[in-house]
Amino acid sequence: MIMSKTLYVINPNSNTDVTAGIDAALDPLRSADAPRIECVTLAEGPRGIQTQDDVDRAAVLVRRFAEEHRQQAAGFVTACFSDPGLHSIREIPDVLSLGISECGVLTAMTMGLRLGVIAILDISIPRHLRTWAAMGVQDRVVGELAIGRTVAELADSEATLEAMIRTGKALRDTHRADVLVMGCAGMAPYRQRLQDAVGLPVVEPTQAAVSMALGRLRLGW
Amino acid sequence: MIMSKTLYVINPNSNTDVTAGIDAALDPLRSADAPRIECVTLAEGPRGIQTQDDVDRAAVLVRRFAEEHRQQAAGFVTACFSDPGLHSIREIPDVLSLGISECGVLTAMTMGLRLGVIAILDISIPRHLRTWAAMGVQDRVVGELAIGRTVAELADSEATLEAMIRTGKALRDTHRADVLVMGCAGMAPYRQRLQDAVGLPVVEPTQAAVSMALGRLRLGW
Amino acid sequence: MIMSKTLYVINPNSNTDVTAGIDAALDPLRSADAPRIECVTLAEGPRGIQTQDDVDRAAVLVRRFAEEHRQQAAGFVTACFSDPGLHSIREIPDVLSLGISECGVLTAMTMGLRLGVIAILDISIPRHLRTWAAMGVQDRVVGELAIGRTVAELADSEATLEAMIRTGKALRDTHRADVLVMGCAGMAPYRQRLQDAVGLPVVEPTQAAVSMALGRLRLGW
Amino acid sequence: MIMSKTLYVINPNSNTDVTAGIDAALDPLRSADAPRIECVTLAEGPRGIQTQDDVDRAAVLVRRFAEEHRQQAAGFVTACFSDPGLHSIREIPDVLSLGISECGVLTAMTMGLRLGVIAILDISIPRHLRTWAAMGVQDRVVGELAIGRTVAELADSEATLEAMIRTGKALRDTHRADVLVMGCAGMAPYRQRLQDAVGLPVVEPTQAAVSMALGRLRLGW
Amino acid sequence: MIMSKTLYVINPNSNTDVTAGIDAALDPLRSADAPRIECVTLAEGPRGIQTQDDVDRAAVLVRRFAEEHRQQAAGFVTACFSDPGLHSIREIPDVLSLGISECGVLTAMTMGLRLGVIAILDISIPRHLRTWAAMGVQDRVVGELAIGRTVAELADSEATLEAMIRTGKALRDTHRADVLVMGCAGMAPYRQRLQDAVGLPVVEPTQAAVSMALGRLRLGW
Amino acid sequence: MIMSKTLYVINPNSNTDVTAGIDAALDPLRSADAPRIECVTLAEGPRGIQTQDDVDRAAVLVRRFAEEHRQQAAGFVTACFSDPGLHSIREIPDVLSLGISECGVLTAMTMGLRLGVIAILDISIPRHLRTWAAMGVQDRVVGELAIGRTVAELADSEATLEAMIRTGKALRDTHRADVLVMGCAGMAPYRQRLQDAVGLPVVEPTQAAVSMALGRLRLGW
Repeated sequence: MIMSKTLYVINPNSNTDVTAGIDAALDPLRSADAPRIECVTLAEGPRGIQTQDDVDRAAVLVRRFAEEHRQQAAGFVTACFSDPGLHSIREIPDVLSLGISECGVLTAMTMGLRLGVIAILDISIPRHLRTWAAMGVQDRVVGELAIGRTVAELADSEATLEAMIRTGKALRDTHRADVLVMGCAGMAPYRQRLQDAVGLPVVEPTQAAVSMALGRLRLGW
Repeated sequence: MIMSKTLYVINPNSNTDVTAGIDAALDPLRSADAPRIECVTLAEGPRGIQTQDDVDRAAVLVRRFAEEHRQQAAGFVTACFSDPGLHSIREIPDVLSLGISECGVLTAMTMGLRLGVIAILDISIPRHLRTWAAMGVQDRVVGELAIGRTVAELADSEATLEAMIRTGKALRDTHRADVLVMGCAGMAPYRQRLQDAVGLPVVEPTQAAVSMALGRLRLGW
Repeated sequence: MIMSKTLYVINPNSNTDVTAGIDAALDPLRSADAPRIECVTLAEGPRGIQTQDDVDRAAVLVRRFAEEHRQQAAGFVTACFSDPGLHSIREIPDVLSLGISECGVLTAMTMGLRLGVIAILDISIPRHLRTWAAMGVQDRVVGELAIGRTVAELADSEATLEAMIRTGKALRDTHRADVLVMGCAGMAPYRQRLQDAVGLPVVEPTQAAVSMALGRLRLGW
Repeated sequence: MIMSKTLYVINPNSNTDVTAGIDAALDPLRSADAPRIECVTLAEGPRGIQTQDDVDRAAVLVRRFAEEHRQQAAGFVTACFSDPGLHSIREIPDVLSLGISECGVLTAMTMGLRLGVIAILDISIPRHLRTWAAMGVQDRVVGELAIGRTVAELADSEATLEAMIRTGKALRDTHRADVLVMGCAGMAPYRQRLQDAVGLPVVEPTQAAVSMALGRLRLGW
Repeated sequence: MIMSKTLYVINPNSNTDVTAGIDAALDPLRSADAPRIECVTLAEGPRGIQTQDDVDRAAVLVRRFAEEHRQQAAGFVTACFSDPGLHSIREIPDVLSLGISECGVLTAMTMGLRLGVIAILDISIPRHLRTWAAMGVQDRVVGELAIGRTVAELADSEATLEAMIRTGKALRDTHRADVLVMGCAGMAPYRQRLQDAVGLPVVEPTQAAVSMALGRLRLGW
Repeated sequence: MIMSKTLYVINPNSNTDVTAGIDAALDPLRSADAPRIECVTLAEGPRGIQTQDDVDRAAVLVRRFAEEHRQQAAGFVTACFSDPGLHSIREIPDVLSLGISECGVLTAMTMGLRLGVIAILDISIPRHLRTWAAMGVQDRVVGELAIGRTVAELADSEATLEAMIRTGKALRDTHRADVLVMGCAGMAPYRQRLQDAVGLPVVEPTQAAVSMALGRLRLGW
């Protein structure tokens, strides 16, 4: 029965390019005998999710989407590293709900002892640190650093990759991280090159969350 | 200059009776030489704040209120024990913003070692526990228990007080709490009787937060 | 290329019935487009893994198995709740290695805030508690209790299920767990009935670990 | 009735200049409708409180002062960043007792996530670190550094301010603090300039503690 | 050279019976080729050390004793479970200083995972809990309970032993302790019987501290 | 009776030079009235213990040695900083079993607040960090750094000492350690010179563990 339903991966910002990137990154997880994966854009969402207000607004929209699509949904993954709406959807009974920051960190915990997180902007870091503490995993995250590029600047992909590599090396050398987590939903195309350049395993969080969701759906729990 | 401004205490639910109760509870803190305290009701807010969705919706409204009243505001206190919008308002530069759950717990930390929190509903407890952990004070909160009464049932004040006393005694005897925090904005009328009946100091969180806000305003930092 | 390789699920005790049970429990995870899953029994392993010496001996055997099967292996899952050999295999370069206790707990962290673990024997509990602390997740595990049945007694499946339900209810009511983890590799047949009887989500750790392994294999990282 | 009583702010060293500085710093908190604030010097106290022996001796004196002035006291604030006698006074029934290191840190926890503490001397830092851990807030204090000036050298106020600014910037840049706590009772005159120079909010702990005391006194709990 | 010096074990209360009991308990540690052990009573000390004020006063006396006996001292052990003066003596250069609560807990950490502490009076428990947290071992101490007998009542040794056994069993059964620490300096005569009755290893903290001191003295570091 | 038995100090690697060095380092702890100390080499052990597989193999051998020598043993100390077999021996009833990493760290906790650990190789550090966390003392270990020399290179003792001093100074200056622990069994000859050069107390862990063992044996518990 679950096969006839859809796993929704919700990009809570309104940027359809980001959604397309997420969609492509999930191709390896698609399978004839698994629920279909549909990546959706919340048109009313903010252009990018940077501030706490962006997160709070997105949470309301994500929750509303989940309520509206609950009948046909196998489950929901929130594809934003601030996991907007995650705990809200979880209060709907019998709904599978996973967040990419949560699953990205949990997956990284199987790949290294000391996690380094690469954020986009400094403003998000205290918010993320509160999340690691709320999850009770603060002792595993040895550092989080931002690449310090605005949404506009992210369009320059080579410079973005370079900034990620520089940040990843700082986490490796100064914070002694032995695994990295990409702190953003739309960075899958950089994962392999970042990993190669820094020499540490790198977790792409949307892929991590969708993997965990599909496992749960196959198992039926 | 601060004297000509207003400290807004925001009740993010739409229940004006709750706002009136909060307003009365703050009378002892009013002073001729301190900023005036104005308690406001968010008419668009949910009737009560129980679910995570209630909190997320309230956060957006609280933030909007803060933006709209920023010019005349000396500061903002969110008078809901889930502190909706707290971190969002804090991202507005130069705005004093305190939350009642945060200040209630911090104040209790000066009155006892082992904090017990009295919640209204069980559904809020995991959300609160995540907050204590995000604050880094989880080792100080030895227990949180709900009185288990719906919003409607709260109207019966004697039964509510009895449930609070019973819950406070459980926290004292089973969890070995030596100070209690009332996990709700509108319970000030019960504070003294609860304290007398249980024999432990009791923190009323809205009073605690407004006290800390007024100190900051007098000091100008 | 990964498709031509095998994900080995290693039962480090010598009990082939346990291996058969694990094998059956993994059927929902098998797919035409995923690496084949092979459950193996370590014939030289102890009859059951109960003591620390059992774990240390199993660790050596698991490691040896991994070295011998490395060429054809897509990865290894150690199907024993003490994760023998896990960190040893991880020191072999470029080998995917997951443990069921680690993945069981990490998966449960997405399904509830307060984890309760159901162990078989009391002697394992301090060992497990050290593992939760070493993982840095000790604040999430609110209790671990043993059903207190010997390996021989586990054969009586109705009595075993009853003991699990009784233990799960104790974790729910006394420790306030809101999600349960089965602290043993071979208990999948009880998962649904345990969940129904206790009313909390229940994680079967071998299924959880194999799910996470398959996701990683599909993604190629 | 509380209005006829006095809030004693106890400088436990014998330096009356320090007491005068504290007294001036509390002016903004004085009000016609609040208990009067009296800053007292313990003539028998050490010249400065630097060693653990200084702290232990001061604790005995502070306690004796509290016992002797209990009848006319609205409460006591110990104005030394090692909070001598704090827990001792708290064992006197029905006596309000707050410490400046405790309240300084708790107040800072509402103003930033990552606290940096500026100590005077290195010898005090392990003592302070034990206090943060005893309070259960060690994860919030990301660093404590000393300005490294002797009591005699503190007299050169420009050089002292410079050292504070240099230390504050190190906490900001190396430890990533986003709020600073002045780890000394007599540094209020530097607060605003330190804050301006470093660009982070700065907590003056005696002001923080007296604010919290006055709130409690107004509320009568 | 160390052989010509004395290891002072300081009973900071004025009760010479307690000192005599400590002295007898240390006999097994005396050796022809180790520094002599001398147990001293501080005549000016309080009759018993129960309150924080008792601790603070004792700290000053212990420190003074150490200063006065420094030349002939091989080292100092403070034989009171609140370790008065411990950190103060440690600030005297090149002086070995150990405390019985610290060493009792550290020794117990090699004998079991979950420590239960048996206190004499409830009033001491928050003080002890702050110490475990300041030591950073709070996660190892699963409970501390008081036998609830006054100093006068301790004279009835059978009733005291009974109360200790009852408390030890509560720590074992309710808190799941697997090792016990006697939270008092003068209880060595009960150690074996308590251990036999409860069935858990029991640490006598003065013996533990003197053992660690003698090892250090033999090694010369 | 204990006097007629032997305290076995087990070097679990096959290097008899290391055993001889350990043996010499224990001379100051030998006494006519204490159990004799015998240092043994496990001939089947790995040449050096570096990998997790080395540790797991050694654990099995250490346990077997303990079983075979149990009758004549007063107790066992595992003289390898990964404490192989420690928890396994502890499951044998009535057998004293101490590990050098555990006792080294616990002893250091009485000599400074912030522990720095000097490892031989980087590969061991995550394993050690998991141990500190499993012990619940992770907040006390502020850093662990490796000298980065292979077993072969350790033969050059002057270069090894220099590397230790350099590493110790880094722990002191960058991590603010105030006590050092030597993270290896065979480094006693360097202890004093390391301490003198770095200016911090240095714990030699085998000496620390044997001291604690002898105290326990003298006391009979």
